[in-house]
Amino acid sequence: MAVAHKFVFQKHFDGFPKESDFKLEKEDLPIPNDGEFLAEAVYLSVDPYMRPYSRALPIGSTFMGSQIARITESKNSKYPIGKYVIGNFGWRTHTISDGKLGEPMILPDFGKLPLSLGLGVLGMTGATAYFGFLEICKPKKGETVVVSGAAGAVGSHVGQIAKIKGCTVIGITGSDEKGKWLVDELGFDHFINYKTTDLEKVLPEVAPNGIDCYFDNVGGDISSTVIYQMNHFGRIAVCGAISGYNEGEKQDVIIQFPVTFRQLRMEGFIVSRWNERRMEAIKQNLEWIEQGKLKYQETITNGFENMFKAFYDMLNGGNVGKALVKV
Amino acid sequence: MAVAHKFVFQKHFDGFPKESDFKLEKEDLPIPNDGEFLAEAVYLSVDPYMRPYSRALPIGSTFMGSQIARITESKNSKYPIGKYVIGNFGWRTHTISDGKLGEPMILPDFGKLPLSLGLGVLGMTGATAYFGFLEICKPKKGETVVVSGAAGAVGSHVGQIAKIKGCTVIGITGSDEKGKWLVDELGFDHFINYKTTDLEKVLPEVAPNGIDCYFDNVGGDISSTVIYQMNHFGRIAVCGAISGYNEGEKQDVIIQFPVTFRQLRMEGFIVSRWNERRMEAIKQNLEWIEQGKLKYQETITNGFENMFKAFYDMLNGGNVGKALVKV
Repeated sequence: MAVAHKFVFQKHFDGFPKESDFKLEKEDLPIPNDGEFLAEAVYLSVDPYMRPYSRALPIGSTFMGSQIARITESKNSKYPIGKYVIGNFGWRTHTISDGKLGEPMILPDFGKLPLSLGLGVLGMTGATAYFGFLEICKPKKGETVVVSGAAGAVGSHVGQIAKIKGCTVIGITGSDEKGKWLVDELGFDHFINYKTTDLEKVLPEVAPNGIDCYFDNVGGDISSTVIYQMNHFGRIAVCGAISGYNEGEKQDVIIQFPVTFRQLRMEGFIVSRWNERRMEAIKQNLEWIEQGKLKYQETITNGFENMFKAFYDMLNGGNVGKALVKV
Repeated sequence: MAVAHKFVFQKHFDGFPKESDFKLEKEDLPIPNDGEFLAEAVYLSVDPYMRPYSRALPIGSTFMGSQIARITESKNSKYPIGKYVIGNFGWRTHTISDGKLGEPMILPDFGKLPLSLGLGVLGMTGATAYFGFLEICKPKKGETVVVSGAAGAVGSHVGQIAKIKGCTVIGITGSDEKGKWLVDELGFDHFINYKTTDLEKVLPEVAPNGIDCYFDNVGGDISSTVIYQMNHFGRIAVCGAISGYNEGEKQDVIIQFPVTFRQLRMEGFIVSRWNERRMEAIKQNLEWIEQGKLKYQETITNGFENMFKAFYDMLNGGNVGKALVKV
């Protein structure tokens, strides 16, 4: 009989998430019934979306999130022992699923690449970058693309797709170290450290032809500044608004002004709208990795008990690339 | 020899436009050369776009705008004496054009309807309402549509197209009198007087199924409040931002939050992008007027010398429907 460790949601976030909003508990699990299987978490994902989405999560629930888990017991022939699944099981070490609970999917074959990529560049964040950038921004060769939150899992991926598509790419990030990684390792053309640089002044210097596409992970004043420098018929993919997830922050200036007069198109998206095309993203991203065109980084925190720390650090920009916890 | 009266731009607007930003002057016009014609203004248009667009207008220029003018002398067979043209001649009573200057277009045949509609419901504002709403919002039967600046030339027209398309229509305006006109005369389902009503509280009452389309003429806090109440996959057509045309006003709250999580699409537009389809809008709007489905109102100020007053009043919401000056 397995014992699950799980983080139970104690309190909706008031401002920034606190450790006391969670409680680590144990749960005795029964032996799987017919049709069920037991999965043991190997990697768990911490993502920015968890902060706003948890508003709808009932207190007392296991906190939300996806994980890669190994099947250790099974009475369901579709989920054989030894296989790995990606499932929305939440922040817990052991889960019994009937194949519906948590929508578990057998992990596709990544060849020699690590399993953990199923939560990142070959998982939801990879699909978010692939569909969100290509379908919403519709980049053309020679255009200038700005990415905010550029060193995060999605941002670093978007910038590389933009380079593959022949664009000039500028990444906005919060440290020179991250910025140098974007330029030196990933091939971004420029980075801007928004904490130490006057974005409004520097953007026209690094984007002398103006900005055609903006992939927005942050919202708030950074986004207003970028949007005010966009070219006519520019496209803005709104992936997230991490700067304002809890605060009702004021926008710098009303953005309807440039949106109108430069005829910009701004569209928010959630990756699930392309669920039926998910394998297309996985295959293309895998091919780009194998061709050496797409690089990735993971920030892995060890120990299930450190879930909150990993989440907190990620929200504070402590990660480069995908933030994960290894059990 | 004709004498033109004209308003010369003296100073870029600092805050709200002032009468002293203009100077009324006279200009002696020569006799038209071969290929030229002389046109005498009959109606001149005053529009919200003039306020922001004038930022790019050199001091000393005649102020911008379109007019309907009668051809009184001509050495150009395409522009015969007695015909009417719509031309971007600016704020002036008499103009010599070679058929290129001011891009004059012979006024289409409106049947028994007044000439002045060529500047309104059968002109640029009519095309703005027609293309902007249908192409950007893509309304579906049964959806809920909110229009801000609803009693203006474009807003009042958009709401009626939305009714023709089978939508529930809510108009936001600045007086009960205008609101009653929208509901009683034009068939809007509801109006909200934003000056006397708590928009955030009342919107869910009049739009119990949420908001699918928002035609935005105003920007600013009104728009933030509407956008925060939109349904998933809602569409926002940004036609103008009259609330913030000169002030760098702060947005109520960052709109990236609902844009992301409800997957909204927000697009700004300028009607000139559909210039090649202009006749489609004129024909359809004319047909709707003849069928009694589309009503219009004009706020006409008499006297060329009152151009500034008409402009000022329009910016202050003093007009219902299209604001015009009759020479």
